[in-house]
Amino acid sequence: MTTPSLLILPGDGIGPEVMAEVRKVIDWYGAKRDLAFDVSEDLVGGCAYDKHGTPLHDDTMAKAQEVDAVLLGAVGGPQYDSLDFSLKPERGLLRLRKEMDLFANLRPAQCFDALADFSSLKKDVVAGLDIMIVRELTSGIYFGEPRGIIEEGNERVGINTQRYTESEIDRVARNAFELAMRRNKKLCSMEKANVMESGVLWREVVTEVGKDYPEVELSHMYADAGAMQLCRWPKQFDVIVTDNLFGDLLSDAAAMLTGSLGMLPSASLGAPMANGRPKAMYEPVHGSAPDIAGQGKANPIACVLSFAMALRYSFDQGEEATRLEKAIEKVLADGYRTADLLGEEGKDPVSTSQMGDAIIAAL
Amino acid sequence: MTTPSLLILPGDGIGPEVMAEVRKVIDWYGAKRDLAFDVSEDLVGGCAYDKHGTPLHDDTMAKAQEVDAVLLGAVGGPQYDSLDFSLKPERGLLRLRKEMDLFANLRPAQCFDALADFSSLKKDVVAGLDIMIVRELTSGIYFGEPRGIIEEGNERVGINTQRYTESEIDRVARNAFELAMRRNKKLCSMEKANVMESGVLWREVVTEVGKDYPEVELSHMYADAGAMQLCRWPKQFDVIVTDNLFGDLLSDAAAMLTGSLGMLPSASLGAPMANGRPKAMYEPVHGSAPDIAGQGKANPIACVLSFAMALRYSFDQGEEATRLEKAIEKVLADGYRTADLLGEEGKDPVSTSQMGDAIIAAL
Ligand SMILES: CC(C)[C@H](C(=O)O)[C@@H](O)C(=O)O
Ligand SMILES: CC(C)[C@H](C(=O)O)[C@@H](O)C(=O)O
Repeated sequence: MTTPSLLILPGDGIGPEVMAEVRKVIDWYGAKRDLAFDVSEDLVGGCAYDKHGTPLHDDTMAKAQEVDAVLLGAVGGPQYDSLDFSLKPERGLLRLRKEMDLFANLRPAQCFDALADFSSLKKDVVAGLDIMIVRELTSGIYFGEPRGIIEEGNERVGINTQRYTESEIDRVARNAFELAMRRNKKLCSMEKANVMESGVLWREVVTEVGKDYPEVELSHMYADAGAMQLCRWPKQFDVIVTDNLFGDLLSDAAAMLTGSLGMLPSASLGAPMANGRPKAMYEPVHGSAPDIAGQGKANPIACVLSFAMALRYSFDQGEEATRLEKAIEKVLADGYRTADLLGEEGKDPVSTSQMGDAIIAAL
Repeated sequence: MTTPSLLILPGDGIGPEVMAEVRKVIDWYGAKRDLAFDVSEDLVGGCAYDKHGTPLHDDTMAKAQEVDAVLLGAVGGPQYDSLDFSLKPERGLLRLRKEMDLFANLRPAQCFDALADFSSLKKDVVAGLDIMIVRELTSGIYFGEPRGIIEEGNERVGINTQRYTESEIDRVARNAFELAMRRNKKLCSMEKANVMESGVLWREVVTEVGKDYPEVELSHMYADAGAMQLCRWPKQFDVIVTDNLFGDLLSDAAAMLTGSLGMLPSASLGAPMANGRPKAMYEPVHGSAPDIAGQGKANPIACVLSFAMALRYSFDQGEEATRLEKAIEKVLADGYRTADLLGEEGKDPVSTSQMGDAIIAAL
């Protein structure tokens, strides 16, 4: 069997710092569990722009298409705010998603027991929370044409297009139903079918796909009501499926509600490759956090858990993924906290690399 | 001086019940404060469809254009779910907003002291919260063309268009800055300028308008980060300005966070009419709640507070508005609670009309 390949794209801000800890974990798996990876590293986002004048070099794109999985840190930073739209760090990330055709973005929103107190929500509202948001990632208003800023009469007009084909909705819905089957068999689909025709089609197609999954209890909710219900009583949900833009807002809100933002990984999955593995990219839900970058304050857990998702979804190593997740639970139970997990408590936080070392020790 | 005119559109679900209590309040003002209104009533939404085959009859539309202010209850219900898109109850509401050109939707998210415990958020996160979300209401993806479901190749495609002109952004931004001037002089604008060109234009125009308001501290936030920050620490905000679709989700989330959803009014304002009053429609933030309709369980406070907003913004009766708001605070402090405000406490709730009577008594 050939050694599985991983492309690491640390990106900007805290990306490189948290990824350095993931490297430790990858090395540990190679040394101690005989699970070696062929790891290469490259640039994406602002750092790629700084070096190549583009947020994603074609060579990097080509590499991403060849490897078994991509691990990404984060992109973006205020120094790139004034760049032309097509050169912004985010375009690098969006190009990866689009060209790898990673249509299903899995975002677990989970509340870690040790951190339930840390949520802005009451403890009973979030303790034990474990939901999965499946966000469509390669279509919708993120990519629809026409788009741009045009002149019309004597003023400018900003235009974007939301577009969903039946097959785009079908494939992400199937993915969500499959996940629901392996969880608590409840799926809630969110759109604005009351005001958007693309939402009407979304609802229709999801309903149709649902006929193939009679065991899954399917419900529909308008996205604004969904935002409300996530804030009110998130435990009512098991799996949520929604479009690219709603998924962006709803999954971020859900992540914040758990109080565990620095803890949440995500997987972006596409169609199976020749070797049977899905095209895949794994990244933390949090952003590049430029305000704390380079200070050793960042929490590496979301990025390490993204690697755990890679073990599970790309490399069929569910047991090893669980081992890693358990190690992280232990570290938290033992009281290790990066600054983001301390709130007003005033205890001394551990650094990014101390947290990484603690995870290795727990493994 | 001619008697000011009000068109009341109770709509569907709990709309008629809560509006009946507003009628009591209006009558009280006529009898006790010499503030008489020329009130007419008509249909909108599902009930208009049932009677006329359209969610808003042209005659009703014409009346709405003539009166000094419109008070709306709520629209929608499951029995209309399968109606053709153009006949759905929501189209009636959207037509009113569009044809009256009510571009600025003011949605206060306020936490009532007596109810701070009722939020799913921790008390210190919400107690005393008082923010104002200004949502653009007549453009964006709600109204942009092209739109619809088309055939392409051998499948259907759902399409909607986000479109914002500079002047559309300019006028709602000005409105938000004016509000910020009368409040704590902080304005946060939310879009997705990192992925949408319409967001890039939005940010540019808001920044430009900001130059006319040097006293207001202007910030920009991506809408997903905005959703997060609303959940984490909403008190960081004073006024928020955002587009139609983001405003829909963000204001609903914010409303739910206060724990006071059944309490929150909104004002939708357009340009000044010949008499100097702005075109205006007032409605509660909550929906038609078909599950509890007709049972006397609904909380009329949001709708009564919408009338208070009408007193303030349309009729220059700020003092009378405050009188009404104070009466409601008193009623709450005295322990009156409709079912939605009781949670698990198990006390006996008051009915919709008992709450209305209590407000009249407090006045
Ligand atoms: C960085 C940005 C382009 C991205 C998005 O909007 O999808 C981010 O917010 C996310 O959710 O992954
Ligand atoms: C009923 C619906 C059309 C409406 C909207 O989407 O604007 C509602 O959700 C609102 O926020 O007023």
